[in-house]
Amino acid sequence: MKPGTGITLREIAERLEGEVAGNHGDIVISGVASLRDAVPGNISFLAHRRYLKDLQETRASAVVLPKGVSFDRLPSIRVDNPYFAFAQLLHLFYDLPYQPGGIDERAIVGRGVQIGRDVTLYPYVYIEEDASIGDQVMLYPGTFVGKGSRIGDHSVIYPNVTIREGCRIGCRVIIHSGAVIGSDGFGFVPHKGRHHKIPQVGGVIIEDDVEIGANTTIDRATIGDTVIRRGTKIDNLVQIAHNVIIGEDCLFAAQAGIAGSTQIGSHVTMAGQAGVTGHIRIGDQVTVAGQAGVTKDVKEGQTVSGMPALPHRDWLKAMAVFEDLPDLKRKLSELDRRIEEIEKVAGEKKGGSGYGHKRDSKDPAP
Amino acid sequence: MKPGTGITLREIAERLEGEVAGNHGDIVISGVASLRDAVPGNISFLAHRRYLKDLQETRASAVVLPKGVSFDRLPSIRVDNPYFAFAQLLHLFYDLPYQPGGIDERAIVGRGVQIGRDVTLYPYVYIEEDASIGDQVMLYPGTFVGKGSRIGDHSVIYPNVTIREGCRIGCRVIIHSGAVIGSDGFGFVPHKGRHHKIPQVGGVIIEDDVEIGANTTIDRATIGDTVIRRGTKIDNLVQIAHNVIIGEDCLFAAQAGIAGSTQIGSHVTMAGQAGVTGHIRIGDQVTVAGQAGVTKDVKEGQTVSGMPALPHRDWLKAMAVFEDLPDLKRKLSELDRRIEEIEKVAGEKKGGSGYGHKRDSKDPAP
Amino acid sequence: MKPGTGITLREIAERLEGEVAGNHGDIVISGVASLRDAVPGNISFLAHRRYLKDLQETRASAVVLPKGVSFDRLPSIRVDNPYFAFAQLLHLFYDLPYQPGGIDERAIVGRGVQIGRDVTLYPYVYIEEDASIGDQVMLYPGTFVGKGSRIGDHSVIYPNVTIREGCRIGCRVIIHSGAVIGSDGFGFVPHKGRHHKIPQVGGVIIEDDVEIGANTTIDRATIGDTVIRRGTKIDNLVQIAHNVIIGEDCLFAAQAGIAGSTQIGSHVTMAGQAGVTGHIRIGDQVTVAGQAGVTKDVKEGQTVSGMPALPHRDWLKAMAVFEDLPDLKRKLSELDRRIEEIEKVAGEKKGGSGYGHKRDSKDPAP
Repeated sequence: MKPGTGITLREIAERLEGEVAGNHGDIVISGVASLRDAVPGNISFLAHRRYLKDLQETRASAVVLPKGVSFDRLPSIRVDNPYFAFAQLLHLFYDLPYQPGGIDERAIVGRGVQIGRDVTLYPYVYIEEDASIGDQVMLYPGTFVGKGSRIGDHSVIYPNVTIREGCRIGCRVIIHSGAVIGSDGFGFVPHKGRHHKIPQVGGVIIEDDVEIGANTTIDRATIGDTVIRRGTKIDNLVQIAHNVIIGEDCLFAAQAGIAGSTQIGSHVTMAGQAGVTGHIRIGDQVTVAGQAGVTKDVKEGQTVSGMPALPHRDWLKAMAVFEDLPDLKRKLSELDRRIEEIEKVAGEKKGGSGYGHKRDSKDPAP
Repeated sequence: MKPGTGITLREIAERLEGEVAGNHGDIVISGVASLRDAVPGNISFLAHRRYLKDLQETRASAVVLPKGVSFDRLPSIRVDNPYFAFAQLLHLFYDLPYQPGGIDERAIVGRGVQIGRDVTLYPYVYIEEDASIGDQVMLYPGTFVGKGSRIGDHSVIYPNVTIREGCRIGCRVIIHSGAVIGSDGFGFVPHKGRHHKIPQVGGVIIEDDVEIGANTTIDRATIGDTVIRRGTKIDNLVQIAHNVIIGEDCLFAAQAGIAGSTQIGSHVTMAGQAGVTGHIRIGDQVTVAGQAGVTKDVKEGQTVSGMPALPHRDWLKAMAVFEDLPDLKRKLSELDRRIEEIEKVAGEKKGGSGYGHKRDSKDPAP
Repeated sequence: MKPGTGITLREIAERLEGEVAGNHGDIVISGVASLRDAVPGNISFLAHRRYLKDLQETRASAVVLPKGVSFDRLPSIRVDNPYFAFAQLLHLFYDLPYQPGGIDERAIVGRGVQIGRDVTLYPYVYIEEDASIGDQVMLYPGTFVGKGSRIGDHSVIYPNVTIREGCRIGCRVIIHSGAVIGSDGFGFVPHKGRHHKIPQVGGVIIEDDVEIGANTTIDRATIGDTVIRRGTKIDNLVQIAHNVIIGEDCLFAAQAGIAGSTQIGSHVTMAGQAGVTGHIRIGDQVTVAGQAGVTKDVKEGQTVSGMPALPHRDWLKAMAVFEDLPDLKRKLSELDRRIEEIEKVAGEKKGGSGYGHKRDSKDPAP
């Protein structure tokens, strides 16, 4: 949509596949904002019940609501998933149609490079020989594309990204600034007290619809390929080592790290600063908690926490006791003291009442 | 100061707002060094009592000392804070006056960009349209400044920094190489089994006197702004997610990470590799220990450690017991055994002495 | 070797300093692959006994085996260290002879820069004045070399690397994309409630045969030098702070971090995401486990784990109990209950049998 223009609530509802409640379809909306920041003319949305108070007070002209909520102070559109609707609204109000910028004369394109239609190559882009750039691809300044690497249609590579030789990037991939794709895997072999480099001659495959965060690093394989499958989203400063294979539709939060040759399933979530050791397997639908350190295989569907990572519930229970450890130690000492007391008394009895019993039984009687 | 020239102790004392002890004001000093590395002609300083031995042995021609210390082997300047004086000495001996380098013809400046006085734009700088560059700003090679972004007076942007569109950088800001400001926040919404991008249409505000480390990433807000307030210093490889707000005069050590929408007070210290989860509040004057993982709000003035983070003292006490856990377990087993022993004896007594007692009492007498 | 050509098994054996088993020296080999991926014409290798099954099934035309293994289904070369042989095979089949690319006219070389023989300076390289570039050095696009910095012979600097002023890089050094060498150390002194920058006027020394990973940051010293000694290999996204000294032949895995002024010995291994606090000493041959947090000196030869880091065995033992903490707590409560029971009984006895005993002994007899 062109900024500054409006769109009717009815048209918005159509885009969101939702329904306008009541007779408000003709209201014109010119922007989207959170419930708190909205001004008249804006549409807003209720993503979670915790914001119900903000809903009561918002100055928005209309709101997107889940189907169940009863609310009629403002015109509303009812949808299944208002948070997904919010993403659609942002696209609607902020996306500009792609305008190809052409190939700047200060972009350097090597011999044998194939360039698709309507690409945008900014100045100070450098593409080595035999690379391939798809249709409507945008390469921002400072991007390096190595020999023979391929970038699929509609992908966007932000400034100062390095894509080394022999990498295959899919369609609609977004790579944020400073990311490095295809750097050498960290492979050395000790021999006579020194570390000798194992040449890293493999590649990297990044499938369609993957997003890669700023300053994230994805190493090339020793031989074969490091693979990130379709739809997986990776945040900033993440490390993906050589020969790692990551499934579809995963979410990797910032500063997570995966060591070499590990295989990760689909729909896996790695929270921030989590780490996974090398040569293991993480099943589908696994969730790894923040700062967790995974040291062995994790089966499908599990949630793990801690270092070394345990099933989340076990970890929670153990951590609950961890906080009480000084108390536990105190109680243990107290029990020790109490037992000692009992033993002392029992000991006295042994040498007293025990003896007395003996005496009792042996006593020839008074 | 021009390298290779000297300055008298009296002049140095004036700059440091300190006093020359005795009649040594005319001594000429030509450099600054640590107590151990100093050679004749150098001035050095005592930052901590643990270096008193180095003070006795230094070859420096003069030293900066705290006011209380008695020492007269060498000429000295007495100040309140010798470590601060050390910083001033380094400025005095190493800072060169700013020399504007002008706008290199291989720097690319878009339409509508406003450029202040005496700027230095190196080759291979790229500034998109409608950006604004303040007076005496230095942009090193490989810097990208996105559409409409602003950089305040006297800021220095080192090589290969990316500042995306719509960011506002204050005055006297230093951004180290490879840092990325304004990359998209990590925002996706699940819908029908896939992750859909939430357009990140907000910005980043970095206030005056902030310093940002090499390869640090600061994401733009979804809507609104990610904010780093005046005087906060951020080290290398730190992750600041979308919509985070960080107060004034904080210190964030390397590899720390703050998840989305978290608000952090002023004068907060985050040690290395610490992490903070999203959507929480950290009060003023909080200290987060190295590798700590903060999972809930922290009140003003607290120090927290561990994952999940606990008040530092509680964590220390629990960790002290943690190391003893095998011992504790052993003691627990031992107590178990001892109790069993007592129970056994008591059981025997019940069926023995208990019976005996019964007998005692029932015994019709010998 | 030229791709697509072959080499006899005898020639390969000579390069590997191994021996061909049997009369197969004339077999021509045209590539190297893992046991699983090998096709006829390939040579493969057995790196570990766990791959013995793959050895039985491989389609390779020849294999490199350790001297002890009995196997004669395929022609083989026998060596001491097949994994080292694998690295040599990759060099043999993939290394191309260095072809100097010359100095591109779009590379910028400052006044007084010394350039060695047969260098390759790509476009968009920027070298400041008085720097020095050794023989056969390769500088890829987007590399910045600061004033007076030196790079030794045969070093390779990948795209978008920043080497600030006054750094000395040795020979055969490899620096991966996005790495930053010589950024300012994180040094500030508090004064009147604000953080004042301590000018970082030292340098960085990187000795021969060091490899530095993508987006790794190595800060310059405050005064003096940050030092990485010969043969040390550093992975991606690692932080080395100011004035750190790292010995020879160390291995630092991804996302590790070393705080300021810490000294690390030779042959030290830091696993992924490990952290070391500032101002401490780590001895030679130390291993720091993944995500460990080292907070005090570690003596030669130790392996440490956990945060704070403990000797690995102690940590393992404590962690084994950690998982059982809820159990321990339950047992403690149970013991408490049992002791209470005993005390109750004993108490009853005291007021009963105790009294009885008294009676027994005092009883003037029936």
